[in-house]
Amino acid sequence: MSVASEKALVPFVSVDNMMRLVRSFGIERVLTDLASEIEADFKRWPLFDKISRVGSHSDVGVIELMPTSDGEMYGFKYVNGHPKNTINGLQTVTAFGLLADVESGYPILLTEMTLLTALRTAATSAIVAKYLMPKNSTIMAMIGNGAQSEFQCIAFKAICGITSIRLYDTDFSATKKVTQNLQGRGLDLVVCNSAEDAVSGAQIITTCTADKKCATILTDNMVGSGVHINAIGGDCPGKTELHRDILFRSEIFVEHPAQTRIEGEIQQLDADHPVTEVWEVMAGNKRGRSNASQITLFDSVGFAIEDFSALKYIFKNALSAKFYDYLDLIADPNDPRDLFGMLERFKA
Amino acid sequence: MSVASEKALVPFVSVDNMMRLVRSFGIERVLTDLASEIEADFKRWPLFDKISRVGSHSDVGVIELMPTSDGEMYGFKYVNGHPKNTINGLQTVTAFGLLADVESGYPILLTEMTLLTALRTAATSAIVAKYLMPKNSTIMAMIGNGAQSEFQCIAFKAICGITSIRLYDTDFSATKKVTQNLQGRGLDLVVCNSAEDAVSGAQIITTCTADKKCATILTDNMVGSGVHINAIGGDCPGKTELHRDILFRSEIFVEHPAQTRIEGEIQQLDADHPVTEVWEVMAGNKRGRSNASQITLFDSVGFAIEDFSALKYIFKNALSAKFYDYLDLIADPNDPRDLFGMLERFKA
Repeated sequence: MSVASEKALVPFVSVDNMMRLVRSFGIERVLTDLASEIEADFKRWPLFDKISRVGSHSDVGVIELMPTSDGEMYGFKYVNGHPKNTINGLQTVTAFGLLADVESGYPILLTEMTLLTALRTAATSAIVAKYLMPKNSTIMAMIGNGAQSEFQCIAFKAICGITSIRLYDTDFSATKKVTQNLQGRGLDLVVCNSAEDAVSGAQIITTCTADKKCATILTDNMVGSGVHINAIGGDCPGKTELHRDILFRSEIFVEHPAQTRIEGEIQQLDADHPVTEVWEVMAGNKRGRSNASQITLFDSVGFAIEDFSALKYIFKNALSAKFYDYLDLIADPNDPRDLFGMLERFKA
Repeated sequence: MSVASEKALVPFVSVDNMMRLVRSFGIERVLTDLASEIEADFKRWPLFDKISRVGSHSDVGVIELMPTSDGEMYGFKYVNGHPKNTINGLQTVTAFGLLADVESGYPILLTEMTLLTALRTAATSAIVAKYLMPKNSTIMAMIGNGAQSEFQCIAFKAICGITSIRLYDTDFSATKKVTQNLQGRGLDLVVCNSAEDAVSGAQIITTCTADKKCATILTDNMVGSGVHINAIGGDCPGKTELHRDILFRSEIFVEHPAQTRIEGEIQQLDADHPVTEVWEVMAGNKRGRSNASQITLFDSVGFAIEDFSALKYIFKNALSAKFYDYLDLIADPNDPRDLFGMLERFKA
């Protein structure tokens, strides 16, 4: 017998319900709406409580908590990053998150965020690219064809108008997986034999590889002028993807500088190397791309505000569409001071 | 139709199941076993990843994340503190927590922690008092008779051999609630008319009040020699319970100094005021009480390692006794790189 009161019950969006929502709404609509939510929150960036994420590092990976608040709602995400997990048949990244009411501190939503993180990361990349990419970009190189790659491709199609994707991965079976998964989605898919081949003719270069080491996915000679680089694989200390020389030729855009200087590509640069906060471009305070030949680089590591936007989106949409269950998560005695009495009177 | 794999499912201990466990095992056994678990972890304190908790403060309260890890398991707790919540029929403190495997980053337990926090706080207070209280203490003053107080009384009975409790609260109905709830538990309950009255003859003084302000529950003249003070209500900046003069007469013991200097009673003192870490006493590195007339003070704010111990205890006991359900929390495709394919092939 449950004695849980209404206040004890927290709406919970399971993996099943998240998939129901995305399939029911359509992934392009979800990505586009998420991008709008993120863009709107980036435009009110100064309002947010900005805390660099709290990581617990081990030899094989990291577990992070990413909290933020806009003063009305509080959200956080639990997320791990374990590059070698795939060897054991596990995800590199898994996540879940929570939204709470700041006024009472009570949780109002618990949700899976493995899928949601893939969606919000792709939506963030694409909405940022919309501000920075060369005009009328149609071709994107997608280097690293893991779990995140299809989401990136669809987001860039839906939000930036990309029509052709040049795919490359050191593991050909990963590229094959992407071509199979993206068949019939209106994207021209070109399988490439090298990273050099992939970037050829592309206006946008997305790098999304996962090794926890300083890798060099792109070298300086591979990157011509007039491109936008969306670098999302380098996201913790000792994990980068770009050769340092590319950074010196690029106008660099970041989410939260304090976090990116530790975790992003710019960990390779001096701590005072100039960067532009991407929210300032969206808010109209700072210039994005200034000319057609410039190299713009979004050194993306993922910030808590993007997860907050995603949590809000799910709170609005999963609840109204009834894609959730209730979870008996919060002990809520009738007399709030009588927690012990609730326990004493409980009959199993 | 669920497509969740075994790895997608995380054991979840609801409020109902937590109550089942405590009622089935018996609360004194649960408190005693929790105290042993906490004591064992305090003795290996240097092993833990110690991070001051990450708080998000508002005018009416705070929401905190409390992570830690021993290198094998990672745990964190979400907890709020909203003193005025009771006006709206809500709990001052609610909580839930998670345990994960450091090797994979995958969650292995999600559990309610409102009840569990009440239990672990009482277990911590009592096991620390066991090291610091005057020999053969039998009488405790319990000032502040809110949601935490019954748990404190029972823990001090089970772990420290306390037989008599002197109760006081500014709200008499709170005290009445405690006397009703603790009837027939082998404790002599004495209702007192003032804090002065309550401390009279007590060897242990527990203060557990909740206002988010610097209050003076105990003034200097009220505290005689040869007592142990268990101060648990002062636990965030601007929230204290003891007059500063008492601190100067006391030997002060704390959990994690970096956190306590910000949140505890000692926020009233200089940053270099000498304190002893309580784990050092348990490990035998430092002296606890040195003589019968000393005033010992446990300036307790609650630390993540206590929650970690509690999470481990629930992981072992709720799972073996089958007091849990499975939660479809982690997206787990057959091919870990094929998150998108899992979504594509999902049929609601």
